[in-house]
Amino acid sequence: MPSFAIGVDLGGTNLRIAAVDEQGALLEKVTLGTQVARGRDYVIAEMCDAIRELSAKCSRAGRMIGAGIGVPGIIDQRTSMLRESPNLPGWDNYPVRDEIERRLGAPVILENDANAAAMGEAWLGAARDTDSMCMITLGTGVGGGIVLDGKIWHGMTGMAGEVGHMTIDPDGPPCKCGNTGCVEQFASATAVMRMARDAIASGRAPQLARAANAPDVEFSAKLVYNLAIQGDQPARDIFKRVGWALGILIADLVNMLNLNMYVIGGGVSAAWSVFSPPMFDELRKRSMVYGATAPVQAVTPPTGASADATSPATSHATVITRALLGSDAGLYGAARLPMMTDEKSANRHIA
Amino acid sequence: MPSFAIGVDLGGTNLRIAAVDEQGALLEKVTLGTQVARGRDYVIAEMCDAIRELSAKCSRAGRMIGAGIGVPGIIDQRTSMLRESPNLPGWDNYPVRDEIERRLGAPVILENDANAAAMGEAWLGAARDTDSMCMITLGTGVGGGIVLDGKIWHGMTGMAGEVGHMTIDPDGPPCKCGNTGCVEQFASATAVMRMARDAIASGRAPQLARAANAPDVEFSAKLVYNLAIQGDQPARDIFKRVGWALGILIADLVNMLNLNMYVIGGGVSAAWSVFSPPMFDELRKRSMVYGATAPVQAVTPPTGASADATSPATSHATVITRALLGSDAGLYGAARLPMMTDEKSANRHIA
Repeated sequence: MPSFAIGVDLGGTNLRIAAVDEQGALLEKVTLGTQVARGRDYVIAEMCDAIRELSAKCSRAGRMIGAGIGVPGIIDQRTSMLRESPNLPGWDNYPVRDEIERRLGAPVILENDANAAAMGEAWLGAARDTDSMCMITLGTGVGGGIVLDGKIWHGMTGMAGEVGHMTIDPDGPPCKCGNTGCVEQFASATAVMRMARDAIASGRAPQLARAANAPDVEFSAKLVYNLAIQGDQPARDIFKRVGWALGILIADLVNMLNLNMYVIGGGVSAAWSVFSPPMFDELRKRSMVYGATAPVQAVTPPTGASADATSPATSHATVITRALLGSDAGLYGAARLPMMTDEKSANRHIA
Repeated sequence: MPSFAIGVDLGGTNLRIAAVDEQGALLEKVTLGTQVARGRDYVIAEMCDAIRELSAKCSRAGRMIGAGIGVPGIIDQRTSMLRESPNLPGWDNYPVRDEIERRLGAPVILENDANAAAMGEAWLGAARDTDSMCMITLGTGVGGGIVLDGKIWHGMTGMAGEVGHMTIDPDGPPCKCGNTGCVEQFASATAVMRMARDAIASGRAPQLARAANAPDVEFSAKLVYNLAIQGDQPARDIFKRVGWALGILIADLVNMLNLNMYVIGGGVSAAWSVFSPPMFDELRKRSMVYGATAPVQAVTPPTGASADATSPATSHATVITRALLGSDAGLYGAARLPMMTDEKSANRHIA
């Protein structure tokens, strides 16, 4: 019997819900505002209503297997409770999973949103032809997720994949995590803005200063990127720094895990054309494992592909590439999770 | 029927061979000099003779399952050939595994020596009560091995676990791997010696200078350690640097993999008492995942245990500890490898 699953991306701003079939086709999708201020119980009730409505609409597509819910925060995989979730106050130490499962009468899996995005890219996106990959999401912060042999690597307590807080420069800028010089301090949208403000304050970035002070325009990482592609040197230098940090990070990941593929997503990944050349320079210099496994031919990449990649699927080469699913990665990845559990229990039946 | 396996530690200097039973008991052990200069075929013949002899001696202990061979160098796990092995010239791109298997008439597994040591500690040593661990070996260089869910994590081409070449300080000393500021440049015996020579050259380390110039004494990392435990400040500062680098490395590993246990072995690990306090300071500061999973009570450790550990086996705490098996870790780990393959095929038979 054909079947489908529900994927939920529960952000601090938006609550997005999708029904996805086992081949990865999107059946239905709905976006609601997350009314965080009205409290946890309100949001859970609204989410469950929307899931039931979506499921009913899709009933012709078969059995509803369950729901996967991507949440910004750390999930203790032993208890399926949120440990820390600054954007969802009042949700920690509450049996979120059990409560939603009870209301839906179907299996529910909670997952960190960066891990869900990694699973989405691994299932249907840039890493669909490989078993093991790491996703790096460059947003307001830098998140990450590791997929090994097709499954999210959670580690001991579900906190694995925090690549954004790996140390790039031990004496670098302080991070709210307590460390100094984290990846997040060089490669997030927040870091791009900070570096831009520093450049403006130095008096050596007149175009950036003009852009920052323009009326009716919100100063953003995207604006810095626009100046960079127009050739403004101070703006280019900022993305050079982004690429430098990502090159060191990926060299570390390659040396440690020797995975097939590293996928870069999130808003800042749109600046690929300006940060990826210095990123690959740094990576080649810093990882002997990459040197031994880099694609043989360097070709001019099509948009969205690795500057070093030839044919990811056919060779044992380390591929660094852009994410393909955009903000839907987390939705698809979340929907995939109950399918995997379902397949496993089906296999147990057969055996 | 009871059985045993052969573990081989094929170093550039010594060839050590052991017969180990399935409970991890050592049945027999022999150490030969590795006559590398006499060429690959000579060494392989000698190894196979010694393995046969040892197996015959142990025949009362049951069936010989096979042999695991730990080799210094990178092994391509797809072909079981050596890719690079500076200490074993002429061994690369030769079917070492197939040739030994043919001569012994038993299954043979080739493994990188640092991975074999990790497996040894995971099976019988410091990490025997956990499923997932990372071993860091501080010797002439810094090696590493990652065990996930009881199995060595090889990555795509068998090159995973190169923790010694992760970047600690992007602008640090150059490494022969092509990178600058690798862990190996701060935490190996070679690095300790380099830092000692630098301190002597600065003119501010009179005791180190005296020790270095003493007749009949070879200047070594151990000598620097001896001065450090006697309270010599320049010598202590060197191990502070070792601890600093290891703290950054382990914070990265914890943030990325969230493993149960990190085991530090190799000759330099004997200096635990002087490098571990700054290592734990750095780790606590730099890893929020460690902060969330550190043992609750800090107790004064017994020799060989983590300065932060309480009871590794009973809690979901991140434990950093010293290796327990010394230079035998690689021998035991190598012997374990054919047993794992044997168990797997036995299970297949049953199913």
